[in-house]
Amino acid sequence: MQLLKERILSEGRVLPGNILKVDGFLNHRVDMKLVRAMAEEFAKLFDINGITAVLTVEASGIALGAACAAEWGVPLLFAKKAKSDNIEGGLYKSDIYSYTYKKNVTLLMSMQWLNSNDKVLIIDDFLANGEALRGLIDIVDQAGAELIGIGIAIEKGFQSGGQLIRDTGQNLKSLAIIDKMDENGIVFREQENG
Amino acid sequence: MQLLKERILSEGRVLPGNILKVDGFLNHRVDMKLVRAMAEEFAKLFDINGITAVLTVEASGIALGAACAAEWGVPLLFAKKAKSDNIEGGLYKSDIYSYTYKKNVTLLMSMQWLNSNDKVLIIDDFLANGEALRGLIDIVDQAGAELIGIGIAIEKGFQSGGQLIRDTGQNLKSLAIIDKMDENGIVFREQENG
Repeated sequence: MQLLKERILSEGRVLPGNILKVDGFLNHRVDMKLVRAMAEEFAKLFDINGITAVLTVEASGIALGAACAAEWGVPLLFAKKAKSDNIEGGLYKSDIYSYTYKKNVTLLMSMQWLNSNDKVLIIDDFLANGEALRGLIDIVDQAGAELIGIGIAIEKGFQSGGQLIRDTGQNLKSLAIIDKMDENGIVFREQENG
Repeated sequence: MQLLKERILSEGRVLPGNILKVDGFLNHRVDMKLVRAMAEEFAKLFDINGITAVLTVEASGIALGAACAAEWGVPLLFAKKAKSDNIEGGLYKSDIYSYTYKKNVTLLMSMQWLNSNDKVLIIDDFLANGEALRGLIDIVDQAGAELIGIGIAIEKGFQSGGQLIRDTGQNLKSLAIIDKMDENGIVFREQENG
């Protein structure tokens, strides 16, 4: 997606430890116009007819997921990351390792809101090692729901998550795939969808 | 807001410990149509002309905040709750106590995205003890930004947060204020705005 790549080039900053800071438009200060345009782009890339929900994970996936769900007229489901008093039993659980927080995290989703009648599209802002996605896919499997695809804003193509998930046959599409980034710049992968 | 009150009455569940579960439409599975209608309602209650951003806090405030920001054509800012590697220095910080997680939490906002030229509306899904709001207001003060108001979806009027914040002169408006809730039912406060 050209518009997203331009924003990454003009405003993104590469920090040590393979960190790409895009918190000026995606995950701290969120440019909702850009995010809405991303929702429109996903609608071209996936067959969203008949989906019953958009699934994402807290926290930074929620704004993009909400824009997609609003655009497509379906509810947004977001998996939670820790046990709080506000979540009772009847949960799908999936353990992942968070590279951001350097600790194990359990993703939680109430069984009440996802079941075998559901047809979902997973949406998230970033894909690097793919741990969060692995957890979300696991939850969709546990629910027996149909996963029609996975839409990612920015994929770090030099990390293993994208390849691992594509190798399982999932319909994964990213709006921007970064093949290389360092102090000299950012190199995007050539993609059919621009 | 009548529509919200009806959803609370039909789908909300009161649990021990003053917990109101509305995770079927507000903070786990999010009904984006309802959330968009809430954004329209806030636009009637506040003078949103000239605001530069909507401010909320992760995680459950993000979907509602995103809908408001998208509706009003401004960016969404969300304060983060813990130090991760993706946030550098240059932060406003405010310590709050999280009753949900029963521990102290530090709210963080990058100084880069909020300053004295900003005019913000705070949006959040719940108000009970008001700790999260106190932290957000503190951050707006630290930035020297103008706070034009605080819009809340559901206020637990029997807890102290709403009164404390109104007593400081803040323009706080809640779409539904619950004065009493127990196994026998939920009683809403009468409000001019329905």
